[in-house]
Amino acid sequence: MDTTLSYDQLATFSKAVFQKIGCSEEDAALATKVLLMADLRGIDSHGVARLSGYIRLWEAGRINVKPNIRIIHESPSTAVVDGDGGLGLVVAQKAMEIAIKKAEQVGTGWVSVQHSNHFGIAAAHGMLALEKDMIGIALTNASPLVAPTFSSERLLGTNPICVCIPAGKQPAFVADLATTTAANGKLEILQRKSQQAPTGWIQDKYGKSSTNPHELRDGGALLPLGGDKDHGSHKGYALGAVVDILSAVLSGANYASWVPPFVSFLPVAEELPGKGIGHFLGAMRIDAFRPADDFKKHMDQWIHRFRTAIPVEGQEKVLIPGDPEREMEDERSKNGIPLLRPVLEDLEYLRERFAL
Amino acid sequence: MDTTLSYDQLATFSKAVFQKIGCSEEDAALATKVLLMADLRGIDSHGVARLSGYIRLWEAGRINVKPNIRIIHESPSTAVVDGDGGLGLVVAQKAMEIAIKKAEQVGTGWVSVQHSNHFGIAAAHGMLALEKDMIGIALTNASPLVAPTFSSERLLGTNPICVCIPAGKQPAFVADLATTTAANGKLEILQRKSQQAPTGWIQDKYGKSSTNPHELRDGGALLPLGGDKDHGSHKGYALGAVVDILSAVLSGANYASWVPPFVSFLPVAEELPGKGIGHFLGAMRIDAFRPADDFKKHMDQWIHRFRTAIPVEGQEKVLIPGDPEREMEDERSKNGIPLLRPVLEDLEYLRERFAL
Repeated sequence: MDTTLSYDQLATFSKAVFQKIGCSEEDAALATKVLLMADLRGIDSHGVARLSGYIRLWEAGRINVKPNIRIIHESPSTAVVDGDGGLGLVVAQKAMEIAIKKAEQVGTGWVSVQHSNHFGIAAAHGMLALEKDMIGIALTNASPLVAPTFSSERLLGTNPICVCIPAGKQPAFVADLATTTAANGKLEILQRKSQQAPTGWIQDKYGKSSTNPHELRDGGALLPLGGDKDHGSHKGYALGAVVDILSAVLSGANYASWVPPFVSFLPVAEELPGKGIGHFLGAMRIDAFRPADDFKKHMDQWIHRFRTAIPVEGQEKVLIPGDPEREMEDERSKNGIPLLRPVLEDLEYLRERFAL
Repeated sequence: MDTTLSYDQLATFSKAVFQKIGCSEEDAALATKVLLMADLRGIDSHGVARLSGYIRLWEAGRINVKPNIRIIHESPSTAVVDGDGGLGLVVAQKAMEIAIKKAEQVGTGWVSVQHSNHFGIAAAHGMLALEKDMIGIALTNASPLVAPTFSSERLLGTNPICVCIPAGKQPAFVADLATTTAANGKLEILQRKSQQAPTGWIQDKYGKSSTNPHELRDGGALLPLGGDKDHGSHKGYALGAVVDILSAVLSGANYASWVPPFVSFLPVAEELPGKGIGHFLGAMRIDAFRPADDFKKHMDQWIHRFRTAIPVEGQEKVLIPGDPEREMEDERSKNGIPLLRPVLEDLEYLRERFAL
């Protein structure tokens, strides 16, 4: 294996691995598409680097490779989907399809999902709506790593908010953000480089501000967007809380400190209040509000206004949410996906493990 | 006038003022209820302190006191409402009622509003859903005072996100947050006290970080939640942008730097892309997802878990979004609403102006 692999090489490999653990060909292809979208878009922490993590969850009996994904409650514009312990990568795609179908019928569709697992990058699901001239929304809760403002305990995940909005001639607006000051992936980069973190990213196990990027191993926590109260961390906490509630309290999944950890070596809490982890997917048809062409014309003007704003000294331009990821996707689709040594070793292990 | 007035005193006065400018009794009562909810909940910047501001907008011909508020486009779960230049305080209440009605019919309701004005505190609208066992959402765009990450220009308002979630025995979860590090009201407090602002709140007109609370007068800007790129300001910017787009690009209101300023002495931009300012209101019926009693039981457990988290040293407890405002509301409902001298003088001016 080289250090840069093409999308096709990685996709063939990933699909084969998912089939080896028992996924149908269709599910293996879907899971691969979602997983590799992270690598293409430069969110390396959520791509093939996690493939072995999903396999370890399966080995621990925490992934059902033949799930019966189904609606267990619904209204014309809503549904609760039971993911039946399947791969979140697959469950969330199917839940988003249900949201889109409902939006086609009554203008919007909203699906809360219980009994799922980690769903990869939120944008992989939210962006499905764009092809249909819809606004797409994707939220999920996640392993508790974040301390609410004034808490020394970790009660929330990095709980991302993703909103995808179609435009006309301009590329779509795609916001996909953890509700923390910094995502876990950024901490991992500092750990590898043995660099200190900026203040406002993490606290130690007593709740004291820290710059040690290894603090989470010792009971420390990531901080909500804002960092501290003076800088609005109670807002980041409130947003992460909304994601947790819509994804899990509304669906019947686990919430707060009960969310099952992604890493298989950490035990799942006892006396769980729900099933698996939760997601929340939404789709809104543009033309349920105004003609899609009118909207797109104004969305283009919105994007143009921001892109041409006078930048601050030292910066080239103002970015539109989704710009960096789209540029990375163009680049990596052409030139391949660079992989770090530990990731290559992980894939090598899987190749041997499954005799591929 | 004393410096502390009872709710009833202020309500009688405010309603009379709204009737004097020509509002119907019903609209005057509605506008008063929304306006004073800010004072009750301790958001002093958005309460009667703004009454004279609304009157000046009316004097400038920018408020229609007899608006024909109506649906101009709809689907079973969505609507666009034309506020016809009415008081946002009234328009948003009526738009939220439409959202609730649609939620009763098809599970959720989503209303984007064009041609409105400043709507007071978002929670006054979002909380209407709570009485119906629904989750309420209220967003609005606002006068451009905020610079996106890397921009020296002000292109966004403080664009709040409000999410209200019912509970059982616990009081409801009510998050209502500006998508900036600090709301304008907090800057005003520093201005009065001649204190410096923390870094991360504002920048000067060139986009350089500043601690001068008067910076906005000289072309400076508020900063998106996060403050700078290292602390996630691109996330606050993305959230503020989503609020702007759902409120205005979706409805046909003005967006970005074209949003009409709240203060009447600033001119409205020429060649506007839309009408007035925009809001976005949503309502989701809990039992469109799961039985309301199940949800409330788990919501109570969620709240209990956070409230009983071990606090960091020096803090008494972890708060639930809405706790401080609800405690203030209880206190001020009983003991009255304290008013600063400039606010009293403003009310005195209105009393003379309208011979009340």
